[in-house]
Amino acid sequence: MVNSTKNLAILGSTGSIGRQTLQVVRNLAGRFRVVGLGAGHNLELLSEQIAEFKPKYIYYQSDNPSKLASFDCNFLPMEEIAGHPDVDIIVIATSGKAGLSATLAAVKAGKKVGIANKEPLVMAGEIITREAKKSGALLLPIDSEHSAIWQCLNGESQPPKRILLTASGGPFRGFSAGQLDKVTPQQALQHPSWQMGKKVTIDSATLMNKGLEIMEAHWLFNVPLEQIDVIIHPQSIIHSMVEFIDGSFTAQMSFPDMRLPIQYALTWPDRVPNPELPKLDWTKIKQLTFEPPDLRLFPCLELAVKAAKTGGTAPTALCAADEIAVDLFLKEAVKFTDIARLAAGVMKEHQNIPHPALDDIMNTDRWASEKALELYRQDKKCW
Amino acid sequence: MVNSTKNLAILGSTGSIGRQTLQVVRNLAGRFRVVGLGAGHNLELLSEQIAEFKPKYIYYQSDNPSKLASFDCNFLPMEEIAGHPDVDIIVIATSGKAGLSATLAAVKAGKKVGIANKEPLVMAGEIITREAKKSGALLLPIDSEHSAIWQCLNGESQPPKRILLTASGGPFRGFSAGQLDKVTPQQALQHPSWQMGKKVTIDSATLMNKGLEIMEAHWLFNVPLEQIDVIIHPQSIIHSMVEFIDGSFTAQMSFPDMRLPIQYALTWPDRVPNPELPKLDWTKIKQLTFEPPDLRLFPCLELAVKAAKTGGTAPTALCAADEIAVDLFLKEAVKFTDIARLAAGVMKEHQNIPHPALDDIMNTDRWASEKALELYRQDKKCW
Repeated sequence: MVNSTKNLAILGSTGSIGRQTLQVVRNLAGRFRVVGLGAGHNLELLSEQIAEFKPKYIYYQSDNPSKLASFDCNFLPMEEIAGHPDVDIIVIATSGKAGLSATLAAVKAGKKVGIANKEPLVMAGEIITREAKKSGALLLPIDSEHSAIWQCLNGESQPPKRILLTASGGPFRGFSAGQLDKVTPQQALQHPSWQMGKKVTIDSATLMNKGLEIMEAHWLFNVPLEQIDVIIHPQSIIHSMVEFIDGSFTAQMSFPDMRLPIQYALTWPDRVPNPELPKLDWTKIKQLTFEPPDLRLFPCLELAVKAAKTGGTAPTALCAADEIAVDLFLKEAVKFTDIARLAAGVMKEHQNIPHPALDDIMNTDRWASEKALELYRQDKKCW
Repeated sequence: MVNSTKNLAILGSTGSIGRQTLQVVRNLAGRFRVVGLGAGHNLELLSEQIAEFKPKYIYYQSDNPSKLASFDCNFLPMEEIAGHPDVDIIVIATSGKAGLSATLAAVKAGKKVGIANKEPLVMAGEIITREAKKSGALLLPIDSEHSAIWQCLNGESQPPKRILLTASGGPFRGFSAGQLDKVTPQQALQHPSWQMGKKVTIDSATLMNKGLEIMEAHWLFNVPLEQIDVIIHPQSIIHSMVEFIDGSFTAQMSFPDMRLPIQYALTWPDRVPNPELPKLDWTKIKQLTFEPPDLRLFPCLELAVKAAKTGGTAPTALCAADEIAVDLFLKEAVKFTDIARLAAGVMKEHQNIPHPALDDIMNTDRWASEKALELYRQDKKCW
């Protein structure tokens, strides 16, 4: 079945998910025309991408640099690309809060929106899902866990009883508190099963990422937080599971490679072959193991669950504090274990606003970022 | 969502699946009215079932015994119950070839047919699926593996790339050839994870059952035999998996209890809670393991695959030979390892009839049963 060519935009095209999305598009020759690309810093790669895909619309975070001047493109803000009538489907592959306003613009314009950047939903899930309901926009999960849940729910007429998010446990699974205190950014960036961007790799190592994924799953699938659990599964073969009301579970499995969930989001409800994707070989898989997450050693997960249950602007405050803390850790200004301590310090002072408007969210984001930096500059004993 | 009450018949109601089907029906109060019951030998239990469920139609293998005379029922042949206008849905829970003609009658009458008895499809899959296509009958898998595949295929618009049937490996997984030569029926009837009837329990121990399930899957899901593989998974948590063309797998998991697939077949496309079913507890599941089947030690699996690929009357000959051989083993007249040898001896002499009519199938069944007994009576060296 050959569908007509769809117009695709990718925001964050030079990041890990952006680059992999373009790999998938190359393999799906004829299905997609890349009409928009947006990037933050990697001018070199962006200009290569423009030369290859010839998009009509470009976003680049700095002012239009001379290097891009020779291309026949329109330079637009991210939000305008996201909501542009020429765009059928958009992949939000930005990092952290960067994709929030573009996600909202795409949703308001009723687009198909591939969600690879979880912070927009974590921060403004209530607004985004409400606007999607109004406009008919479709939120297409790209995170591997959420793609797995989506695949497991395929064809089911009833909501799930429970979602079981799997987590690899990151590079520090089984570490002692003493060991964890000494880990370096280099160690934290060595994820055992996934190749990802820096922010999400560190968030995976602290398990903050899994906490944000709980919130993402809550909004994407309209499942109460109490019905979403986390289980450590170090092999990263099962990408998540769903339990139904009859006690039956379904799980989605594949070789850990983001190109599969990206492709599924782009081609859904169809599936298409992709010879480039590594396949699971069940003659070589000897065992799949499971263990509960260690909340004492990885307090970020519990911080996130608490923020999720508080709701309102609490998830935004946590995201902002985490973004600062991760950045400080990557610069070796704080220790790995300080990420959770700094975030907890910010959350202690956060005044929650229930059912926030976008302004409340943006103000909270600013407040929490500043508070995190302020705490960082203080004596650690005060956090 | 409460559906109107459906009229249900169960053939083989006093066997393991039959009894569990009635347990499910009790739990689904109001959804089903039991209008027909059929049983072979257990007069005591059948009369209890009649007293409780008050069916209009009864089949009992012997002539109508006086014990049942007091009940206000019509005694009918199995085939008439299966095709009766009063019956909406029928569960074929007979054992071995016993359910073949009733399955065919139900299919010709366009019923919803719950398939717990795999031999009819193995022997006459071509005829049954052709007739189902004509009449609009729905074949509802009840075997746990096939229920798993069915659940995994839910909502998918494309056929699977591959089916991976899981097998517990039975009680003799890891045995040496010498140990296997000495096992008793008592040992063989101790299945590590499933409570089932005697025939299917022995077939599980020889892996013949898994071979028959390959054929069942082939007919139920219209998947080429080359695309169906077997993997040993001793915990019996994953009941089977499906691979899609994009390399994604889905798996269905649950506590090994036949009441779940029975209930799914009865309530499909809905799922309903059943507090009586034991649930998987992921805080206690430490690992799921996998290994390839040992075809040298368990030659029945290979015999079945060969018969499946030959097609025609070969699967019927194998079923008949196996039914005799299992019976002889249960009577301690032959050894466990003789089951495969006797079946292989019969297959060596079988003259295949491609695209057989029902008569060809019944004749082959008779021939192979007699041939198996004839070989048994001869010196073992001649097999």
